[in-house]
Amino acid sequence: MAVSLLNERDLEFMLYELFDAEQLCQRARFSEHNKETFDAAMETAKAVAEKYLLPIRQQTDLVKPEFDGKKAHLLPAIKTAMRAVIDSGLASASADFEHGGMQLPSLVACAVSAHLTASGMSTMGYTTLTNANANLIQAHGSAQQIETWVKPMREGRFTGTMAMTEPGAGSGLADLITRAVKQDDGTYRITGNKIYISGGDHDLSENIVHLVLARVKGAPAGVKGISLFIVPKIMVNNDGTLGQPNDMALAGLFHKMGGHAITSTALSFGENEGAVGYLVGQQNKGLTYMFHMMNEARLFVGMGATVMALAGYQYSLNYAKERPQGRLMAEKNPASAPVNIIEHSDVKRMLLAQKAYAEGALALCLFGARLHDDEKTQPEESARLAAHTLLDFLTPVIKSWPSEFGLKANHYAIQVLGGAGYTNEHPVEMFYRENRLNPIHEGTTGIQSLDLLGRKVPMNKFAGYRACLEAIEATCQEATEQSKLKPYADQLQHALQTLDSATQAVMGATQTMNMDAAFANSAKYLDIFGHVVIAWMWLKQGIKAQQALASSLHTTDYDFYQGKLHTMQFFFRSELPEIEHWASLVRRLDTTNYDMQTAWF
Amino acid sequence: MAVSLLNERDLEFMLYELFDAEQLCQRARFSEHNKETFDAAMETAKAVAEKYLLPIRQQTDLVKPEFDGKKAHLLPAIKTAMRAVIDSGLASASADFEHGGMQLPSLVACAVSAHLTASGMSTMGYTTLTNANANLIQAHGSAQQIETWVKPMREGRFTGTMAMTEPGAGSGLADLITRAVKQDDGTYRITGNKIYISGGDHDLSENIVHLVLARVKGAPAGVKGISLFIVPKIMVNNDGTLGQPNDMALAGLFHKMGGHAITSTALSFGENEGAVGYLVGQQNKGLTYMFHMMNEARLFVGMGATVMALAGYQYSLNYAKERPQGRLMAEKNPASAPVNIIEHSDVKRMLLAQKAYAEGALALCLFGARLHDDEKTQPEESARLAAHTLLDFLTPVIKSWPSEFGLKANHYAIQVLGGAGYTNEHPVEMFYRENRLNPIHEGTTGIQSLDLLGRKVPMNKFAGYRACLEAIEATCQEATEQSKLKPYADQLQHALQTLDSATQAVMGATQTMNMDAAFANSAKYLDIFGHVVIAWMWLKQGIKAQQALASSLHTTDYDFYQGKLHTMQFFFRSELPEIEHWASLVRRLDTTNYDMQTAWF
Repeated sequence: MAVSLLNERDLEFMLYELFDAEQLCQRARFSEHNKETFDAAMETAKAVAEKYLLPIRQQTDLVKPEFDGKKAHLLPAIKTAMRAVIDSGLASASADFEHGGMQLPSLVACAVSAHLTASGMSTMGYTTLTNANANLIQAHGSAQQIETWVKPMREGRFTGTMAMTEPGAGSGLADLITRAVKQDDGTYRITGNKIYISGGDHDLSENIVHLVLARVKGAPAGVKGISLFIVPKIMVNNDGTLGQPNDMALAGLFHKMGGHAITSTALSFGENEGAVGYLVGQQNKGLTYMFHMMNEARLFVGMGATVMALAGYQYSLNYAKERPQGRLMAEKNPASAPVNIIEHSDVKRMLLAQKAYAEGALALCLFGARLHDDEKTQPEESARLAAHTLLDFLTPVIKSWPSEFGLKANHYAIQVLGGAGYTNEHPVEMFYRENRLNPIHEGTTGIQSLDLLGRKVPMNKFAGYRACLEAIEATCQEATEQSKLKPYADQLQHALQTLDSATQAVMGATQTMNMDAAFANSAKYLDIFGHVVIAWMWLKQGIKAQQALASSLHTTDYDFYQGKLHTMQFFFRSELPEIEHWASLVRRLDTTNYDMQTAWF
Repeated sequence: MAVSLLNERDLEFMLYELFDAEQLCQRARFSEHNKETFDAAMETAKAVAEKYLLPIRQQTDLVKPEFDGKKAHLLPAIKTAMRAVIDSGLASASADFEHGGMQLPSLVACAVSAHLTASGMSTMGYTTLTNANANLIQAHGSAQQIETWVKPMREGRFTGTMAMTEPGAGSGLADLITRAVKQDDGTYRITGNKIYISGGDHDLSENIVHLVLARVKGAPAGVKGISLFIVPKIMVNNDGTLGQPNDMALAGLFHKMGGHAITSTALSFGENEGAVGYLVGQQNKGLTYMFHMMNEARLFVGMGATVMALAGYQYSLNYAKERPQGRLMAEKNPASAPVNIIEHSDVKRMLLAQKAYAEGALALCLFGARLHDDEKTQPEESARLAAHTLLDFLTPVIKSWPSEFGLKANHYAIQVLGGAGYTNEHPVEMFYRENRLNPIHEGTTGIQSLDLLGRKVPMNKFAGYRACLEAIEATCQEATEQSKLKPYADQLQHALQTLDSATQAVMGATQTMNMDAAFANSAKYLDIFGHVVIAWMWLKQGIKAQQALASSLHTTDYDFYQGKLHTMQFFFRSELPEIEHWASLVRRLDTTNYDMQTAWF
């Protein structure tokens, strides 16, 4: 391949310079790893992506899954590709050695996944969901459940789903009505309908393990009466062999704007005697467990959106470097040769914006992955707790900012190509269609904004919020020591004050105002927080780049670091100041949204 | 139909209250019209749309045109629908009576087209292009050309295209290389390749009239050596009957993200002896003539984007009114019934934003159409000139603001529906895909920004620019007289100062700086201008709404006008203040974009 899908130099920078992946090798869990094993995993991912996923990327978009009234039929090449991913070990990159995993740090596994995602985001959805499903059962299921379900999922024989949404409830999980009735043998019979279940049916694996939210008869109303069940597509005998099909049916497929490799299904459980389900953990604690999976899925959504942004950036960058068109404005001679479009200031703007969004989002997602490693493997309990607190706090930002701005990056990728970008001769329109799902699934941007402002900020007496602001402040302090970075550190400190004043205003209002009015600008608040956090990620990158430039380097490294500094400048000049207006709306508790009446629309 | 595609009350408001369509009936050209004939045209459009276009809207998206190696094959229902539009007379709504048109004011024709566009934007592309093509030949062609080509186009027997773009030149028309060689009989032989030609081949009409830009041998380099030719798909005999096929071939179809009803073609002219072409007007004046068509097409692009935004708004509004999900934050009882999602503040925000963008853009497009009527039919020459100057100045804004923010409106329409919006069970994802083309074709947003800042602003000693600012100022003066509107008038006057300071800064810089550096923030400048103009359109609407509320009205009107005032408030509080930051970048001539080096990406 002449053109790389991703900027590998940047992945290296993120892993080894920004987030010090090698330092993790000092911890017991990762003691068998080193830079060589990390790099080998990256190389493997790249090779698998280029050999199996990239060649079928367009085909999986053009040939959509079909429903024959009973089953979903997929392009056979998807199975081959998925098998290659599993056989390479990459599907379980961060799982335990003893479960057949590579036991890589999440930080490294996340970077490794970028190659695969860039070549087949929706195909990779099968393994991503399977992993998250297996991780949930491993954390909250019984030893027998782990043996029966997790093991074959780690081996790639079974795949997994997350079955939450119902036609009548949507994002309002409190209203889900799927029923579970306990049987004498301790199992349950599940009856109900689920929609938008990704990977809910296909012929890629021997069996599908659905994690289903349902309500046991007599359970309390609302979210406190929801339990979690393992509901297999095909029953598994005690010896691990497959038995009869469970009482569930594929009711249909949804036809999505993008992401055609992964089926989106409507599933009907228990049309006859009831589908057999196995309770995970305790009754009525289902949503708590599901959040284990959902939080993981939210981080993956952020990363998926980021990778689409990176891939679109890389593609449009290459196009802009090679496509001659027009002349510079300063050129008055019509007989002069056209320039490559990368020379035009407005094209540079669209490429800079993509770089700022995509690499800023990548830093954030990898920072989240590093926090995930720290919450699991930091030697000190207090350090583990601190990492957990910060990651939990940042999850709505990691989910939503890359989704919104990654999509915007893909918008610019199309725009750089112009008319060509609107056709399927180039993949950027596909990235854009695929990415459009990310601000929706696993909790819309609006829901993330309420999660941030309504739960995460005040949680534990503002512990996560304070920890986040202190961490940003610490980076500002570090940056202040380099004179070239001081103006950026000052600007970010000012932005922190802006953010904090907005926070204080809303938190004060929750005591005195109607809650729906007080939170009427939650989406703007999320935007402010996201921009501050991404500016933080850019300042972190700026510090490393500035340090590197101070040592002697060859030219390509010089260009790389200059690019980092210049993109940081772009974000601080073009993007970060946007928060001032957003904050003014939040701070003065503008109720224009809340006050709007249905009859006035 | 239970749900209307568009808010008809709003169209009525725009036509009769805001832009006083009835007043146009006093002019000779429109003297046979009155409110009844206007309303009848609207009713006809609605009926044709609902009977012929709406039922096939999804089908035209799903069944794409196919290329058999020679011809393009379309869904037969498209031909039926197009025939119905032509037979209704709506395809030539504003054309002269003597050419078979309805001779409606552009203002009314534009509103009438909204029903058709909402039901089939890309299908309507055939008639829109045909009209614009016919209008060009009528303005610049010979009497014989009008007889031979315009007449059958007005009758709907022929269709027309605009063939500008070439593979090697793209938007850089100066570099087009299609050649034209004069023959002894006065005709030309055309040789070259054109791409992205909408409606370039199909089986909907007897013949296709291509307007082709080409370079006569020996012509000057650049845009000053371009001539315009009529190149028919099939030759027409002297008696008007069809003759032999011309020497041109369909080389292929482009596969677009949306707008599948209209073919996007690659055409090859003159693979054998050369395609016969007829020069329009004078040699080397081709681009000037083509701008006649292109300016018209740009206004239509703005209107098409607007209608997609209106349709998405209406659809998501209806969905939000009927879809129960979740509870208000102030509701603590989980056993309470879910509310319809329109009750949630964040959903109101997304609907308000859509209403603000879509109805703001509609006012702008209809204002442009009214200016078009005025430039043709104002009794005083000075008034005609004034209207022409303002319309010419505003064209890049009318083309681009609705394209960018109409797409954003469609983004929110999807978001209101959540997962459902991402599937083809609802049309909003289709609107979004179709609308994505609008910031690209007929000059990208970037090109419009350079047209505005580089040409339109300084043109004729800032005549258009000054006229625009004075017109906005006059509206502010009018608004000041109503105490409730004074704060908005004050804010818009302040915004005008912001805009003017940005303009002065860039115009000053063109004297002292490299042009590409001075114009490095042209896109932000266009954003500022667009937001100011849309705020102006909202203040105009606010004036009418406030006046109407002062008189006695029944409840539905009260709600309608309150909705206008509240949406104006939304635009002024949420959107207009964004320009301050954008202007600060422009004013201080920030060169971050310009300074970025290719090697740093």
